[in-house]
Amino acid sequence: MYRDLNAGQMVDRIEQLMTNQQYDEFQLIIDELQPFDIAILFNQLPEELRPHFLGMLETRILTDMIQELETSAQYQAIRMIGSSRAAEVMDEMDNDDLATFLHSLSDKESDLFLSSMNISESGAVRKLMTYPAETAGRIMTNRYVWIPQHYTVKEASGKIREFADISETISYLYVIDEDKKLLGVVSYRDLILAEPHHQISQIMHSRVISVDVGMDQEQVADVIRNYDFTAVPVVDPNHVLIGIITVDDIIDIVYQEANEDIQKLSGSGKDIDFNTKPTTAAFRRLPWLILLLFIGLISGTIISRFEDTLNQIVALTFFMPMIAGMTGNTGTQSLAVVVRGLISKKLSGKEVRGLIIRELLVGLIIGLTCGILITLLAYVWQGSLMLGFVVGISLISTLIIGTIAGTVIPLLLNKLKIDPAVASGPLITTLNDVLSLFIYFGIATLFISYLV
Amino acid sequence: MYRDLNAGQMVDRIEQLMTNQQYDEFQLIIDELQPFDIAILFNQLPEELRPHFLGMLETRILTDMIQELETSAQYQAIRMIGSSRAAEVMDEMDNDDLATFLHSLSDKESDLFLSSMNISESGAVRKLMTYPAETAGRIMTNRYVWIPQHYTVKEASGKIREFADISETISYLYVIDEDKKLLGVVSYRDLILAEPHHQISQIMHSRVISVDVGMDQEQVADVIRNYDFTAVPVVDPNHVLIGIITVDDIIDIVYQEANEDIQKLSGSGKDIDFNTKPTTAAFRRLPWLILLLFIGLISGTIISRFEDTLNQIVALTFFMPMIAGMTGNTGTQSLAVVVRGLISKKLSGKEVRGLIIRELLVGLIIGLTCGILITLLAYVWQGSLMLGFVVGISLISTLIIGTIAGTVIPLLLNKLKIDPAVASGPLITTLNDVLSLFIYFGIATLFISYLV
Repeated sequence: MYRDLNAGQMVDRIEQLMTNQQYDEFQLIIDELQPFDIAILFNQLPEELRPHFLGMLETRILTDMIQELETSAQYQAIRMIGSSRAAEVMDEMDNDDLATFLHSLSDKESDLFLSSMNISESGAVRKLMTYPAETAGRIMTNRYVWIPQHYTVKEASGKIREFADISETISYLYVIDEDKKLLGVVSYRDLILAEPHHQISQIMHSRVISVDVGMDQEQVADVIRNYDFTAVPVVDPNHVLIGIITVDDIIDIVYQEANEDIQKLSGSGKDIDFNTKPTTAAFRRLPWLILLLFIGLISGTIISRFEDTLNQIVALTFFMPMIAGMTGNTGTQSLAVVVRGLISKKLSGKEVRGLIIRELLVGLIIGLTCGILITLLAYVWQGSLMLGFVVGISLISTLIIGTIAGTVIPLLLNKLKIDPAVASGPLITTLNDVLSLFIYFGIATLFISYLV
Repeated sequence: MYRDLNAGQMVDRIEQLMTNQQYDEFQLIIDELQPFDIAILFNQLPEELRPHFLGMLETRILTDMIQELETSAQYQAIRMIGSSRAAEVMDEMDNDDLATFLHSLSDKESDLFLSSMNISESGAVRKLMTYPAETAGRIMTNRYVWIPQHYTVKEASGKIREFADISETISYLYVIDEDKKLLGVVSYRDLILAEPHHQISQIMHSRVISVDVGMDQEQVADVIRNYDFTAVPVVDPNHVLIGIITVDDIIDIVYQEANEDIQKLSGSGKDIDFNTKPTTAAFRRLPWLILLLFIGLISGTIISRFEDTLNQIVALTFFMPMIAGMTGNTGTQSLAVVVRGLISKKLSGKEVRGLIIRELLVGLIIGLTCGILITLLAYVWQGSLMLGFVVGISLISTLIIGTIAGTVIPLLLNKLKIDPAVASGPLITTLNDVLSLFIYFGIATLFISYLV
């Protein structure tokens, strides 16, 4: 019956129950809710009720709820429940989530929390925090169930029961030998299909796909995506099982990586969101802009070289922004196609050549279309067919070159093992400005005698 | 032992076994492989061996493998196995995957395949294909196991065994009443933890989160992401269970949606990847470029208005590209921050005002920094402090206005329920060109008397 309440009504109901001290019904509702829903409840409850609310949640549920909160809200909640209970919660938290939370604190505070925790748990987290960011080691959890291969299905089920809390979100058992080396995997479904007396070694899948602890998180995402797994085991160089990575973390990573690409492509610098302080945002964006300012001046010096040409036909200036802009735009288009394509696919030399030829043809078609169009427009506007030709021919060549630049530069960076997304749209645009103006005025100067 | 072979060695081994007709060992290897691995094998095998290879796979494995192939390779495989076996495979395919495949064919061919299929299966697929693209209805599968609530745990396990193939990839049972209305959900883990005689109604979770068949796939992704589910049930308006959506499809959707945003932001048009034909790619990119060409001409007309100013101080032209470019770049940066931010977060009016003020401050800081810098550079280069001031003051104002434009335009589109990402980088850049030139020459004309 609670299913039909919307978030708002739910909050009112909970407030009511708390003020009337109807704790049994309160628990009934909480038991029916998902951690994410309880987190929403917490965020919407009036400040003064929150500590009491947290106090009434049993530790397991409280932990799951806290894991769904934003870092800042997590901090608030942890402070509210007091240090001793906080320690309990942290002992139960997935240690990848906990590591992320602790990283957001000062070293001093983080150490304080860690020291209050169960020694084995804090040890696991400290270990996790030593792995480089954005690698498998950093996003894995130690919340998984492992069994020896001589176990029977019955014994395995027993172990799941024993570790009921841990086994909650996952649906595999991992089979290891006496050295903790990974031997195989058994899905909960395999257990249900098998007879209680069957040996695990009989039903386990021994060609288990695992990822190395040092693997980049983007590659881990590809593994999970390719094999349609809901979790993948993480092994160290000796093939010892040291954790698992679950699909829910992978989805968050896919979002995050996409955002990073967009930030880079737009040259907007790392980690700017709606909550970033103006000064911080400005200083993250400035380096790019200052670089681009200097490149922009190069265009200026090019123009100054052609000062005489300009003095004779000022009309040439009118088409400058259009030509520079168009070249920048077509470059950005190619860039986006290449950068995004490189994420989902590694290219062979043959494919690279194919792509460049493809973009060359695209540039040709685009160039001819826009070139002919602008020739007519320029003629109509300025009444000089010759000027029209100069502008048209320039646009054709700049569009072709702009397209190629937007394709080759990211491919080159990729070849040099540099993230192609650093060739941001603004950079390509500005470089293409320089190229296009040079071509434009070059051609104009060639035809100057016909123009004046 | 096969686990240690890499893809290349695996292919050689398989070829060898096929040519030596060692079919038992062939099957041993295949049984150990994941569908994705078998798909790679198929793609790497020499053409002439492929039909034989497919012939040796049992239908279940063949089906899973085909589901891992690209559409074009799927088509090739389906053709190779002949129509009768193709029908069997299609009967077993997840019907969301099958729908996607059939959509890639001509209606005639698609109907031909459908008519060869088991009537109930083809019916399900035909139904699926009627739902609008990018909605829950289109990405759901009918490969799930449902049970009535009076079942015992033992009976439920029996049903899983009965539908072993279907129950493969999922880890939930869905509980429905006599009208097929969704009552609750039971995870495989719940079954393992419970006693065989327990009633499903006792152990099921009745506040089951479900999505409506018409829900946009991006929202479905949010649900799965928020609740960390591996699958979510799909219901019709009467709350009747009609399918489920699995997390592996969601990951693909998250990739796809991110790509769409990048394509829009870069104005590169929909669906251009490494395999798109040059003509197609060109024609998808042209509409934007032609629009931008005309906007670019506006800049031209603005300059022509200031022809006298230009005639007197040609040096003004040198800074045109830099000012226009910088304004475009800062606009693109703001745009990216806003567009991506809007995806993960809905903004209240208060937050919108806050964001605009934030960007205003950012523009101010960026503007002052770059403005002062360029004043000095212009002075050093052109030896005229006055010119330096004109360029500097212009840059300050254009950067502030460019930043605001890059912020307000997407927010406005979002307010008007238009996808803010259509305000592509190129569009913002080109608009900012126009704005900036107008400001630049306006200021220059004001100070003209001091400049000459």
